[in-house]
Amino acid sequence: MSTVGIVGLGLIGGSMAVDLRARGYASKLVGTDRNPLNASAACRLGLVDREVSLEECVSESDLIVVSVPVSAATDMLQRILDMFKEGNYTEKVVIDVCSTKAQIAERLKYHPCRKRYVATHPMAGTEHCGPWAAMPGLFDGRACIIADQEESDASAVREVEEMYKTLNMRIVYMNSDSHDVHTAYVSHLSHVTSFALALTVLDKEKDEKHIFDLASGGFSSTVRLAKSNADMWVPILTQNHDNVLQVMDTYIEKMKAFREAVASYDEDKIRELITEANKIKKILR
Amino acid sequence: MSTVGIVGLGLIGGSMAVDLRARGYASKLVGTDRNPLNASAACRLGLVDREVSLEECVSESDLIVVSVPVSAATDMLQRILDMFKEGNYTEKVVIDVCSTKAQIAERLKYHPCRKRYVATHPMAGTEHCGPWAAMPGLFDGRACIIADQEESDASAVREVEEMYKTLNMRIVYMNSDSHDVHTAYVSHLSHVTSFALALTVLDKEKDEKHIFDLASGGFSSTVRLAKSNADMWVPILTQNHDNVLQVMDTYIEKMKAFREAVASYDEDKIRELITEANKIKKILR
Repeated sequence: MSTVGIVGLGLIGGSMAVDLRARGYASKLVGTDRNPLNASAACRLGLVDREVSLEECVSESDLIVVSVPVSAATDMLQRILDMFKEGNYTEKVVIDVCSTKAQIAERLKYHPCRKRYVATHPMAGTEHCGPWAAMPGLFDGRACIIADQEESDASAVREVEEMYKTLNMRIVYMNSDSHDVHTAYVSHLSHVTSFALALTVLDKEKDEKHIFDLASGGFSSTVRLAKSNADMWVPILTQNHDNVLQVMDTYIEKMKAFREAVASYDEDKIRELITEANKIKKILR
Repeated sequence: MSTVGIVGLGLIGGSMAVDLRARGYASKLVGTDRNPLNASAACRLGLVDREVSLEECVSESDLIVVSVPVSAATDMLQRILDMFKEGNYTEKVVIDVCSTKAQIAERLKYHPCRKRYVATHPMAGTEHCGPWAAMPGLFDGRACIIADQEESDASAVREVEEMYKTLNMRIVYMNSDSHDVHTAYVSHLSHVTSFALALTVLDKEKDEKHIFDLASGGFSSTVRLAKSNADMWVPILTQNHDNVLQVMDTYIEKMKAFREAVASYDEDKIRELITEANKIKKILR
């Protein structure tokens, strides 16, 4: 049983808190958030036992989870590893849960306490945010990436694996660069295509009633990610800049190929594109 | 209580059959499908009481539902209205359930039995097809468009309204041209963006295991429509050619605006685009 400190009491940090307590991994939970509203809500919702300062969070916790947007996470991780050094903490572990990994890895590479940091990315979430969005079971059955595990102490990795197994996550190992390429395809691009879909429909359907009336399940599911918030996604898209651009370019080419097939009434080509796209069935269950 | 004839025993026709029987609208159901496998499966699954010829389907039924892809529907509707004329049937009603409306409307415009046809589009479905995909409750709470209702007999429209109310659908009235514009935005475009997303990911992620491992709920929901079948979607995209092209062009522009913002690390612009896209929240529940 460990004391877990949550830095950033939003959807991800809050949902981890719920299940780590309920499933007996955490005996005590403390938390901090730069937004006092989030912090006090997280206490009132019972996500953490106490709101603490960052310093208390680090000194009281065995495992510190940094669940803030990636733009803030790099500085925060460095600060916490500095505290590890100053406090001569050799048993504590800090993790982040960010959607991009390479820039953070680069920044922390030579930190003397680097080995007490484990880079993780639990691939779960909803389009909602804040401690009010926290929910039990969010991580069950989903994949969690541990990046660059050879850069961390084996004991630190083991502790983190145990924590994620408590959350019922399937752990996948890869290096930071591979992580950023793969997530550009299976996560970041889906968000951008949803944002663009929402923008297109909002642009044209000035009469909102018709969207509401006609939006079928298909549209709703395709556009769902367009509800995702800018604080999280602006830094992801800029930090994973090169991969995201490459993926967007490929995507725009595919859209143009589709456009040309439709423009020229080329039914064979449209059929070929759809049949090829259908292969996604084999991969998703 | 009516006898309902289903022409095309797939997901839509089959699901209508299930609820029209269960909810007491249809006392008898007959059906026909050019694919004998579908027809016999529909009988074995209990969707219809008997497989019949098209001629029997028309002569035995009070309401005939044409639920075949839009490429086949126009000829089929014309043939059935010809039978109405030959048989001097003035009480029977035929409907289609196609996703495009303007071309059909144009073709049937001057048919002497035009008034016994009601153009409808129940906006419900799944990415699966065939009689095995039929399910109860598919239409509950969804929108159903009745197009050009002034072109049909009031008695025919009333009958069709009653049938769709049995399916718990919200009825929306508009003309064929408006229908085709709106559905290009809220339905056809979502399908194309999903197809393009699947193509992009399949193209790059040769290592299928990673897609499977990493595909989160977000990716799955965004790409779900890419499982939709070509027989249905090739004719929709070509029949609604002009609207679909215009919508795709707007969409490609939005993607390019996003791309430029990411390419130039313009965080303010990315934030502006995401915040604008978030407005879709107000429209969807």
